[in-house]
Amino acid sequence: MPITVVGSIAYDTVKTPFGKRERMLGGAAVHFALAASFFDDVRVVGPVGEDFGEDQLAVMRCRGVDVSDIERVAGGKTFFWAGEYGWDLNSRETLDTQLGVFEGFEPKLSEQSRSSDVLFLANIQPDLQRDVRAQLPDARFVALDSMNLWIDIARDSLVSAIEGVDCVILNDAELRQLTGKPNLIGAAREVLSWSPPEGSGATRGPSVIVAKQGEYGAALVTRDGFFALPAYPLETVIDPTGAGDTFAGGFIGYIAAHPDQQPTDELLRRAMAHATVLASFNVEEFGTERVERLAGAEIVARIGELHAITQFSGAPLALRG
Amino acid sequence: MPITVVGSIAYDTVKTPFGKRERMLGGAAVHFALAASFFDDVRVVGPVGEDFGEDQLAVMRCRGVDVSDIERVAGGKTFFWAGEYGWDLNSRETLDTQLGVFEGFEPKLSEQSRSSDVLFLANIQPDLQRDVRAQLPDARFVALDSMNLWIDIARDSLVSAIEGVDCVILNDAELRQLTGKPNLIGAAREVLSWSPPEGSGATRGPSVIVAKQGEYGAALVTRDGFFALPAYPLETVIDPTGAGDTFAGGFIGYIAAHPDQQPTDELLRRAMAHATVLASFNVEEFGTERVERLAGAEIVARIGELHAITQFSGAPLALRG
Repeated sequence: MPITVVGSIAYDTVKTPFGKRERMLGGAAVHFALAASFFDDVRVVGPVGEDFGEDQLAVMRCRGVDVSDIERVAGGKTFFWAGEYGWDLNSRETLDTQLGVFEGFEPKLSEQSRSSDVLFLANIQPDLQRDVRAQLPDARFVALDSMNLWIDIARDSLVSAIEGVDCVILNDAELRQLTGKPNLIGAAREVLSWSPPEGSGATRGPSVIVAKQGEYGAALVTRDGFFALPAYPLETVIDPTGAGDTFAGGFIGYIAAHPDQQPTDELLRRAMAHATVLASFNVEEFGTERVERLAGAEIVARIGELHAITQFSGAPLALRG
Repeated sequence: MPITVVGSIAYDTVKTPFGKRERMLGGAAVHFALAASFFDDVRVVGPVGEDFGEDQLAVMRCRGVDVSDIERVAGGKTFFWAGEYGWDLNSRETLDTQLGVFEGFEPKLSEQSRSSDVLFLANIQPDLQRDVRAQLPDARFVALDSMNLWIDIARDSLVSAIEGVDCVILNDAELRQLTGKPNLIGAAREVLSWSPPEGSGATRGPSVIVAKQGEYGAALVTRDGFFALPAYPLETVIDPTGAGDTFAGGFIGYIAAHPDQQPTDELLRRAMAHATVLASFNVEEFGTERVERLAGAEIVARIGELHAITQFSGAPLALRG
């Protein structure tokens, strides 16, 4: 069941304690698409400049990603981000952001991209997310990501955007900021209570909340339950850039690959596991380097390892008192 | 298999967004002992002042804790701590610390306390931890906690103390600080490589590392493997004070209650689950209020819930590529 993703396609310059890369392929839509491509067909919608190379398109094409809705803007420059991570990779400083063609981006979806049953709205201005979402009114499953910037300067629009999707994937701090609720469960329950905007024609509000917790893993909150997974333990993490979008690609990809089922909690848990594993590969090398040459069998093997390190057996024990 | 715990017995004044308590019963040894008392006999070693009440001793006695090695110092004042938590309970400010009888504390262990097979060295000056550990040379399982202060001002002594125990229970940030390794697995592996101090007569170094991660749960690293558990999800957390020591009490208590086994990874995982559940009860109310009236059946029920929210089934899926 094909997936359409709308979001940034970028050049990233990244410095971590383990090295540096200049102008490597990046962007939320790219990381998402590469991860989701292990599960289903993916169509990428987003703008690039004249500086965007065939080699970069080839990276996506090699994974079967449909790049025909990537719009090359004449005279434009591809979105550029430069950042540096601290010693434990938990803090990062943005050194440069050049929006380039992303400024004034108006998503143009081909008929094929509009026909996808699954839609991921990567982190872009929430008005654009709503506009794209309205172009796929019959999509079976729609998810979005966002960031603190939009909570700060466009909260009302972001809330409207969220009210029109099935699934919200945010960092846990963003979920707290969005709702003003310090407790993760309380914040997630608040978002689950939001209804579709009046007059939107939508018949359902958000039903799946994923709180990304970086190196600590991720939590899933639905109306029926709660689930949490630690991150896959790695002794060496090289570059966390794109981990969240790779996580989202694994999560949404897994859901898209199971079109016969409404996403039950059991399916969503397996999607969380695949998301966790995809993200773990992403951070093992710079940018898209590791996921580019990832094999399905490696994913399957690591799912088994993730399973093994998160299970415990209840043991009968006569407790005192 | 009886447990001896050496550490602070305190009065705590705590303010959280949900209320305030003045001079309530607290201290690492108290929180540890109450939690461990659900699993085995516990003997508390620590000093109190003349201001320490019978009511406070009764709280421990009610849970079967042996308080005969609690030393009442004539003319002294009980250790006092006052702190205030921020809105999401993840930050706290210490407003007052009065060491009282804890200054100049020299642990005096009765013959009975020295005969315990399991020893927990709560967070005290590492020279004292080493002194106590030497008084129980034949203990089957010895664990310690510490804090950033001792890493800053007494790192050599702390390293020696760690080299002489089986199990280290630290916050993950402390584990990174202690080893200078930013990666949790790398930091834990470093500590696992430490050997007993020469001439100490000890025959084994640390083999079990527990990294506490606050609201995100905890991770376990041994020579054989890795395990991680999220925290039990609570919509309302009232007061995190003592959560780490309550966690340690559940962990060590569970191990002590299984004397027939060397702690295998399977046993340690179940101990992690019980630790997680005990800590979740602790934070539901101020200080020791919730654990004081906790029943064994509630622990068993929540273990079942923790199991339910952390399990996923691997599903066969033909991945692409």
